[in-house]
Amino acid sequence: MEPEAKKKVLRMINYGMYILSSRAESHLAAATVNWLSQASFTPPLVMVGLKVESDTFATVKKSRHFAVNILGRNQKALAQDFFKPSSVEGTRINGHEYGNGKTGGALLKETPASFECKVTDIVERGDHAVVLGEVVEVTINREDTPLFMRETGWFYGG
Amino acid sequence: MEPEAKKKVLRMINYGMYILSSRAESHLAAATVNWLSQASFTPPLVMVGLKVESDTFATVKKSRHFAVNILGRNQKALAQDFFKPSSVEGTRINGHEYGNGKTGGALLKETPASFECKVTDIVERGDHAVVLGEVVEVTINREDTPLFMRETGWFYGG
Repeated sequence: MEPEAKKKVLRMINYGMYILSSRAESHLAAATVNWLSQASFTPPLVMVGLKVESDTFATVKKSRHFAVNILGRNQKALAQDFFKPSSVEGTRINGHEYGNGKTGGALLKETPASFECKVTDIVERGDHAVVLGEVVEVTINREDTPLFMRETGWFYGG
Repeated sequence: MEPEAKKKVLRMINYGMYILSSRAESHLAAATVNWLSQASFTPPLVMVGLKVESDTFATVKKSRHFAVNILGRNQKALAQDFFKPSSVEGTRINGHEYGNGKTGGALLKETPASFECKVTDIVERGDHAVVLGEVVEVTINREDTPLFMRETGWFYGG
């Protein structure tokens, strides 16, 4: 398998973009992710790929909960603000207002919607772990079309 | 958690669309899927949610391999042809020309690109199983922009 061909083909997979957050005791972590999909209707499960050597994954593993904030069509800049390490100041994380979800993660006020999960399974096989979570809470802030990663010009995959 | 709100929020997750195929001995299965994402760079892994009570999942479980055909922007009709049970006639599956992948699954001639995987892990937790596979082969047929499920007007999720 030729590495460039593999990269080209895997970059044809389409993604949305999300800010995933988790709290373990007083530590609040958040990061932009795109390797995320629903994985069951009953119970409602989602699966997400998280970098094994990341603060976010360490926090999810400890807390066994995470929140997912769904980015709207014009929120590319918001996605970018969560490429860097998490920094909390008062009621803001990385400069953006948030509230505490029922399961501890940050629910951003600016994103159209969020959901919260309880971790059911973790598979550590590659450089990203597959985390499976059951959706236990949802929050709707406003109507919006969700962001397509392809429209941002960024790629994470390949 | 209110069921309608849960459905609305989970339907904001963005997806591409794919035809997944697998062969176990003489049986060739194929079905349209959208719950699919990359899950690791090294090794290159993908994760896919497959309905537990489906011919495709039974075949993947038996063969421990699958092929993924990536649908192009104008291939909504092709996606629809694989909502029904698989039917092979000569070199066509559900009416579409295919070749046999190195790992046995059907590689459609019409789709822009395909990749093949060896199953590494299966998590059976909900009504869909999470299948994790290592990408072992890729095929590129032509340039195209991949299909967004949102543009088809269909939803599979919620």
